[in-house]
Amino acid sequence: MRKIRVIKRRIIYQGPVIRLVHEWLKTSQGQPMIRETIQHPGSVVIAPLLDREHLVFVRQYRRAIDREILELPAGTLDVAGESILACARRELEEETGWKASCMRLIARFYAAPGLLSEQMHLFIAEELTPVGAHPQADEEVKPVILSLDEAIVKIQTGLICDAKTIIGVWLTLGKLASSKLHLKH
Amino acid sequence: MRKIRVIKRRIIYQGPVIRLVHEWLKTSQGQPMIRETIQHPGSVVIAPLLDREHLVFVRQYRRAIDREILELPAGTLDVAGESILACARRELEEETGWKASCMRLIARFYAAPGLLSEQMHLFIAEELTPVGAHPQADEEVKPVILSLDEAIVKIQTGLICDAKTIIGVWLTLGKLASSKLHLKH
Repeated sequence: MRKIRVIKRRIIYQGPVIRLVHEWLKTSQGQPMIRETIQHPGSVVIAPLLDREHLVFVRQYRRAIDREILELPAGTLDVAGESILACARRELEEETGWKASCMRLIARFYAAPGLLSEQMHLFIAEELTPVGAHPQADEEVKPVILSLDEAIVKIQTGLICDAKTIIGVWLTLGKLASSKLHLKH
Repeated sequence: MRKIRVIKRRIIYQGPVIRLVHEWLKTSQGQPMIRETIQHPGSVVIAPLLDREHLVFVRQYRRAIDREILELPAGTLDVAGESILACARRELEEETGWKASCMRLIARFYAAPGLLSEQMHLFIAEELTPVGAHPQADEEVKPVILSLDEAIVKIQTGLICDAKTIIGVWLTLGKLASSKLHLKH
């Protein structure tokens, strides 16, 4: 990778979750470059498999886009000292009311690397048992069970329009096809 | 969709591309809710098909994650009055050096709707002719041609780790499988 030199760096905003940074840089070719980036602690996304054909989604209002959307359960890595796995377990239980005996990290990807540092860690959750949802006080999250076929149709028709959810459904399908999952029929 | 009431709204930062907004809200149930969101004009992503088996990617340094990654060509809808289609044509040409006779909008999705309003518009570009790349002065973008099989392996092994690119490759595969594209063998 080429070397980037930081000439000047200004933190424009530090919030509870994100930090907005303005930087004056110089490329290896000596070219000046100005970048605004958002530093983010990263997040987890969970594909909770009820059986080989059904996933648990959540429906919730997202302020950034001012609409309700259908997503896989997810959450920010914002609790100090909490592992990625523990965060995924907690978010799954809080948002869907299901607890998993088996969690498997299957992928990592960046949500919007042109602007945002957020890396997403995708888990498949298996061997689920119901425990009752308990979302955070300011969240209204409604679990929705869909078959993988229904989810694929919703992706194709734009009714599922969230990047992490599209990726989660497809990677889960791929993993099921390669039959490496523990699920019993 | 439920009604959200805005109690107070503060623009923390207005940059050339993004706006950071802090809001105090009240849900339909009267529950207070504080949200920080990033307003973004949206973007285009292009899957440039050289033939039925090869796509043009770009390799570039992304400051937000401080590394070079392999992506589909993309760009922000930041030129006043420019249509989404014109933006996609311009970005394709600037970043890859290929011009397309046929552009097809195949999907729209949100990059990170928990935080960011950015909607991505995914095009398949066909009937390409080389015109020579001319990236913006502060961008160093290198075109890379990969077969779809190579791209799928890179997704499975984490070497392609950008959400829009993962989605672009898969949706292109799906469209090719359903044989609705113009490409001649």
